[in-house]
Amino acid sequence: MMNTVDNDICTEVMDTIESNSYNIYFENSLGELANFIERGRYSRFFVLTDENTGKHCLPLLQERLGNPDNFDLIEIPAGEESKDIDFCIGVWKMLIDFGADRQSLLINLGGGVISDLGGFAASTFKRGIDFVHVPTTLLSQVDASVGGKTGIDIDSIKNIIGTFTQPKAVFIEADFLKTLPARQILSGTAEMLKHGLICDADYWNRLKQSDLSTPAVELVHRSVEIKNAVVLEDPNEKGIRKSLNFGHTIGHAVETYSLINDKDSLSHGEAIAIGMICEAYLAHKKTGLSAEELSEITEVLMELYPRYDLKKADTDILIEYMQKDKKNQNGKINCTLLDKIGQFNIDNICTPEELIEGINYYATL
Amino acid sequence: MMNTVDNDICTEVMDTIESNSYNIYFENSLGELANFIERGRYSRFFVLTDENTGKHCLPLLQERLGNPDNFDLIEIPAGEESKDIDFCIGVWKMLIDFGADRQSLLINLGGGVISDLGGFAASTFKRGIDFVHVPTTLLSQVDASVGGKTGIDIDSIKNIIGTFTQPKAVFIEADFLKTLPARQILSGTAEMLKHGLICDADYWNRLKQSDLSTPAVELVHRSVEIKNAVVLEDPNEKGIRKSLNFGHTIGHAVETYSLINDKDSLSHGEAIAIGMICEAYLAHKKTGLSAEELSEITEVLMELYPRYDLKKADTDILIEYMQKDKKNQNGKINCTLLDKIGQFNIDNICTPEELIEGINYYATL
Ligand SMILES: NC(=O)c1ccc[n+]([C@@H]2O[C@H](COP(=O)([O-])OP(=O)(O)OC[C@H]3O[C@@H](n4cnc5c(N)ncnc54)[C@H](O)[C@@H]3O)[C@@H](O)[C@H]2O)c1
Ligand SMILES: NC(=O)c1ccc[n+]([C@@H]2O[C@H](COP(=O)([O-])OP(=O)(O)OC[C@H]3O[C@@H](n4cnc5c(N)ncnc54)[C@H](O)[C@@H]3O)[C@@H](O)[C@H]2O)c1
Ligand SMILES: [Zn+2]
Ligand SMILES: [Zn+2]
Repeated sequence: MMNTVDNDICTEVMDTIESNSYNIYFENSLGELANFIERGRYSRFFVLTDENTGKHCLPLLQERLGNPDNFDLIEIPAGEESKDIDFCIGVWKMLIDFGADRQSLLINLGGGVISDLGGFAASTFKRGIDFVHVPTTLLSQVDASVGGKTGIDIDSIKNIIGTFTQPKAVFIEADFLKTLPARQILSGTAEMLKHGLICDADYWNRLKQSDLSTPAVELVHRSVEIKNAVVLEDPNEKGIRKSLNFGHTIGHAVETYSLINDKDSLSHGEAIAIGMICEAYLAHKKTGLSAEELSEITEVLMELYPRYDLKKADTDILIEYMQKDKKNQNGKINCTLLDKIGQFNIDNICTPEELIEGINYYATL
Repeated sequence: MMNTVDNDICTEVMDTIESNSYNIYFENSLGELANFIERGRYSRFFVLTDENTGKHCLPLLQERLGNPDNFDLIEIPAGEESKDIDFCIGVWKMLIDFGADRQSLLINLGGGVISDLGGFAASTFKRGIDFVHVPTTLLSQVDASVGGKTGIDIDSIKNIIGTFTQPKAVFIEADFLKTLPARQILSGTAEMLKHGLICDADYWNRLKQSDLSTPAVELVHRSVEIKNAVVLEDPNEKGIRKSLNFGHTIGHAVETYSLINDKDSLSHGEAIAIGMICEAYLAHKKTGLSAEELSEITEVLMELYPRYDLKKADTDILIEYMQKDKKNQNGKINCTLLDKIGQFNIDNICTPEELIEGINYYATL
């Protein structure tokens, strides 16, 4: 099993990246979208947005496509609460009402909520219509739009329902990030840092030295390259793809907890940053991550991300969320840890006691 | 493109039929299910039933499996109304509550409602868990359980949401048909007759001469063989698979109409029998089905199935349903017709006027 992602696959920096059966465009990406639409034999076009991307991103999209009049718009409220089965039913019903047929194309214009929900809705509508992603958050550019996972939540259980379905193409346009709030940028940064931590120490070092409040497009490109290489190697999540779960076992539980309990809940990346600190601690205990590297990871993340009061969280509830996580079986909780920075280590069963120790490491920082 | 299904693939009559990556068992099928469960590495088992199959079929299943105690039961009300997104959400929530993980197996014990809904629920739960079908209606044995289509309804629009996902195996047990009401047997017979009409005139003739109130298992086997051969040849419904749509363009519209308007609504097969008569008329007009064969088909079906008062149905509404049917694009309505008995003819665009003529042929019989 490969456990680093070769650096020199990245020769020309802003190359189009080829995934399984589809392309991820970086240069002139909205022009490429126009070409894609031109080439395709679609009968109808639907653009899925949320309130924010409808306001900030749709005008640019429309302008670059020459203000097409054959696009129907579907808008949902912004936020994770919309990635719910009820809103999914709303999208299906709009597609029905607009008369969408099997030759329709759904264009998901937004962050991970839009690509996950839109991807699921499209992959099941009339047993599957085509969709493309135009990711407008950093998180969705470097993570959610690549890999073919779609998903929705039920009763705040994240991604409990979904499919593995590839988009027909992904169009990454840096301009969209200009209107993205700083906190949302940081949410994506967490996944980029994760990409460095799990398989590219050089990239981690470059990130550490960069101004991450406006990440350079070359960095976005490198992250997509890593994520894409990983998912191509292991489409069904049997091996190396689990590397991407670093920080996510505890992170997801914290995210669910915050979603239910906080008025202003944590973003995905904020929760994952916490998860990475807790799991770096577990890595130190279980897979040989050095004390120095644990400190380095802790320091970098604590400087970037606001402190979250985990003491107030009931650890039993967090453990319960982890047991319900679809990554886990038979109630056994599985973590991806690190041997060192740039080298992941999958399939570590952690006991509730160990996990609580990891949580406490963060809580008492 | 093949347009008949070879008869001599059927050498030993009750052979296990191989589909893509899974088997369809006929002999000692519940014993085979026990073997399947034995061999599999499943963590948990869930049996989906409706009220009727819970009462009539579950005891036999449990007995043959040695009354296992590690099975959780999920029961929904009987009837097409249960094949709805709301009941699907109910099934997902039960799986969540029971703690189903990715290594769980869902056993769909029932008719087409159970296999379509259960197949969809399983194919999307945690992005897909394994499922098998144990079809207990004639319709689901000869049709719904073979081919990998899953589906649910929204607002009574049939199968508007679904996936293409294969079961891990299908277990066909003739004993289950003993408790099946006569009207339900006839619903399945319609699909068997269709199999003969589209690609096996000999089989049609055998069926005509048989007592169809208790169809011999050899006939069930032949139907499964035909359906399986067709879907294997054309998994994505680009060509020959469309042959199975004979009777279904008009039939589905009539079925939807009846579901909404009648207290005691038509069964799927009853609606399809009507559709086959209307479309045989269109075949006579458009693809050369002889007047004699049109009469023969009309006579056989009218003798088997109760007359339905189509005059009262608003034909505009029926046409609207057809235009919304996922088989159709751009509002164009596509029919599979017959050149003669035993030879289908796909991709015939029919105008609303032609379709109304077909409907009127039936309505004025
Ligand atoms: N499918 C996958 O592989 C995968 C991977 C990671 C995360 N995810 C999912 O992604 C979701 C999180 O994604 P996200 O952080 O992009 O969330 P999001 O889609 O909710 O976007 C965050 C916020 O930014 C706003 N926004 C989006 N683009 C904007 C722009 N250009 N300018 C101004 N505002 C903008 C949105 O309206 C929203 O309020 C989660 O549901 C997570 O589960 C999926
Ligand atoms: N997926 C496919 O390829 C496909 C093909 C054809 C039809 N279908 C779907 O199948 C559904 C119709 O299937 P169906 O006719 O089996 O409907 P069904 O599942 O509703 O069963 C009909 C009735 O028979 C009862 N029943 C089932 N088994 C019984 C038994 N052994 N003894 C006594 N009662 C029993 C059920 O409770 C129900 O009341 C429709 O929703 C249709 O869309 C799917
Ligand atoms: Zn993540
Ligand atoms: Zn049918």
